Amino acid sequence: MGKNRYEQGWNRLAEVDGSAGEQVIAGLKDIAPDLGRYIVEFAFGDIYCREELDLKEREQITLASLLTLGGCETQLDVHINGALNVGIAPKKIIEIFLQCIPYTGFPRVLNAVGVAKKVFAERKLNVNA
Amino acid sequence: MGKNRYEQGWNRLAEVDGSAGEQVIAGLKDIAPDLGRYIVEFAFGDIYCREELDLKEREQITLASLLTLGGCETQLDVHINGALNVGIAPKKIIEIFLQCIPYTGFPRVLNAVGVAKKVFAERKLNVNA
Amino acid sequence: MGKNRYEQGWNRLAEVDGSAGEQVIAGLKDIAPDLGRYIVEFAFGDIYCREELDLKEREQITLASLLTLGGCETQLDVHINGALNVGIAPKKIIEIFLQCIPYTGFPRVLNAVGVAKKVFAERKLNVNA
Amino acid sequence: MGKNRYEQGWNRLAEVDGSAGEQVIAGLKDIAPDLGRYIVEFAFGDIYCREELDLKEREQITLASLLTLGGCETQLDVHINGALNVGIAPKKIIEIFLQCIPYTGFPRVLNAVGVAKKVFAERKLNVNA
Amino acid sequence: MGKNRYEQGWNRLAEVDGSAGEQVIAGLKDIAPDLGRYIVEFAFGDIYCREELDLKEREQITLASLLTLGGCETQLDVHINGALNVGIAPKKIIEIFLQCIPYTGFPRVLNAVGVAKKVFAERKLNVNA
Amino acid sequence: MGKNRYEQGWNRLAEVDGSAGEQVIAGLKDIAPDLGRYIVEFAFGDIYCREELDLKEREQITLASLLTLGGCETQLDVHINGALNVGIAPKKIIEIFLQCIPYTGFPRVLNAVGVAKKVFAERKLNVNA
Repeated sequence: MGKNRYEQGWNRLAEVDGSAGEQVIAGLKDIAPDLGRYIVEFAFGDIYCREELDLKEREQITLASLLTLGGCETQLDVHINGALNVGIAPKKIIEIFLQCIPYTGFPRVLNAVGVAKKVFAERKLNVNA
Repeated sequence: MGKNRYEQGWNRLAEVDGSAGEQVIAGLKDIAPDLGRYIVEFAFGDIYCREELDLKEREQITLASLLTLGGCETQLDVHINGALNVGIAPKKIIEIFLQCIPYTGFPRVLNAVGVAKKVFAERKLNVNA
Repeated sequence: MGKNRYEQGWNRLAEVDGSAGEQVIAGLKDIAPDLGRYIVEFAFGDIYCREELDLKEREQITLASLLTLGGCETQLDVHINGALNVGIAPKKIIEIFLQCIPYTGFPRVLNAVGVAKKVFAERKLNVNA
Repeated sequence: MGKNRYEQGWNRLAEVDGSAGEQVIAGLKDIAPDLGRYIVEFAFGDIYCREELDLKEREQITLASLLTLGGCETQLDVHINGALNVGIAPKKIIEIFLQCIPYTGFPRVLNAVGVAKKVFAERKLNVNA
Repeated sequence: MGKNRYEQGWNRLAEVDGSAGEQVIAGLKDIAPDLGRYIVEFAFGDIYCREELDLKEREQITLASLLTLGGCETQLDVHINGALNVGIAPKKIIEIFLQCIPYTGFPRVLNAVGVAKKVFAERKLNVNA
Repeated sequence: MGKNRYEQGWNRLAEVDGSAGEQVIAGLKDIAPDLGRYIVEFAFGDIYCREELDLKEREQITLASLLTLGGCETQLDVHINGALNVGIAPKKIIEIFLQCIPYTGFPRVLNAVGVAKKVFAERKLNVNA
């Protein structure tokens, strides 16, 4: 069963975050392998595999939470890529960030948009396309 | 034009938050009326009236942002009611909160679920219905 | 010298926060007296006694910082009283809170205005006077 | 295996947080039972059952993290009780909070000490004993 | 009227943040132009154009709020420049940061002072002048 | 007496943070020397010199608080070094970070582990040794 959670989580992680997610786990191998295991088993195996919300909805919520937390530019990078991977359009990602302005103010939103600008450029995406 | 933003915002506020939202604005009348005006004009007139995301999506993002901020139980109360008003099922509201666990940890999620429990009881809603 | 810091701090605390500040220190006597001592010696003796900013400026900065932190309603109560004690008008206190909207969003500002409403009512102050 | 994680977690939760912890889980039964399950399985089954740190060390770290987060007075109540349950003296709990002053400032520490004061009174504990 | 808010905001932005502020807006043109528009219209047109506080007071409050938020080094850079532009002396900017120590602890203050050090060096300013 | 607090604090700072701590103070000399003095006198002279907790416990609490605050990577670098200096094993530092997952979620923990990875590499330490 434990193995099952890991396998399910790994598949979900690969589906959402692609190679960026796998690199996060690989980067933990020599320093904190159990942290990588918990991310796979708990975050992706338990939480991301639940029903009631589809993957697009989960990524929208994740983007809003990471933006609001602050200081999570690295994780925003991974999950902006994740949002694109599950089919959320660049324009919609920006719109999710704008919806947070009344609750977080402008600085957190500016930081998130800055990460999106970098990711969209790397993937040669046009936000207006 | 300014009047337009206020009217549009007021209609949107009434649609989302119902009487609870109107009470927030009314409660500011004698102490900080301009704060109420900015919430109507900017948060609801400018942001909530944008396209690209529907009202259900906006409320999902708002719930995730308020949960993550912490210390916003009063606003969570208003927007859990708002989420119900725009047609998000109680079970889905709880699911939005669970999706935040990997990003915020358990305490913020427990606080948000505590507010939902109170709101659902007030509205005699069954989360499993 | 240590005694000096305490005395200077105590006088400054009394000047700014009045009996509310003294009650905070008294309330710590049986549980964490050194915490009370550090607040007097360090916060009020070292910091609040510095030159370069007057007491009104210090209270303005303190209100902005407490509002932004969140979850500090008790401390906001003490320092809204403190701001009034050093001569900041009720209307200006509200204005300080409004200036924070672009940086913190609306929820933190709503919470701070809610505390101000209570304090102004207790002191029978009219924000428009 | 999944059952094992739950059982292990439940035993650890009972050991640390006693009836207060069990009440948290029970209170979630009708609204978000899976949240209770994750707290038992993941927080207590996976994390609190690890070696390398004993329970006293884990509670010290938990108290520091909850104090720093802010807005977690309910969880601080549970874990101040938990710290007492695993044998941390009242005086040491206060000391943990004082160590956070340089990193969080006074307001968060004042809020945590306020919760401790209530818990110690409920358990008729003298901080100087 | 909407145009008016933008024009008023743009003038105020130029007055406070100078070319750095204009660069923030320009950098948003291709990715999130409406975010730039809201900063101009709402933050600078609505909020910064209010009476009751002068520009020096507004920048003092802004610096305290940004320091307390954390993770806003980019925005602190812009507003330390803004504070200098409206006539706040370097020494006073540092003093604003020191006033926050009791409320935020040392790390946030160290980060803000680090940004000030860079800005003062770029502008060849001596904090003791 | 004041001099005494500084000397005691300086010795404690040197003992805990070594040359990294001294560099923090030195880096403040030209911009905010009093900030350096307060860190020495108050954080290290008053707080770190208290009894009831030994230096290892103080560093554990400090690491948990800094991780939870977020945006304090520079200070985490200094205090991961400090934790090693007072004899906390690399493996235990990672374990402290893992204990925070249930309270802060994964992103803050990932950021802290990333800093530890850098520090351990600089000191050629093996987390499994």
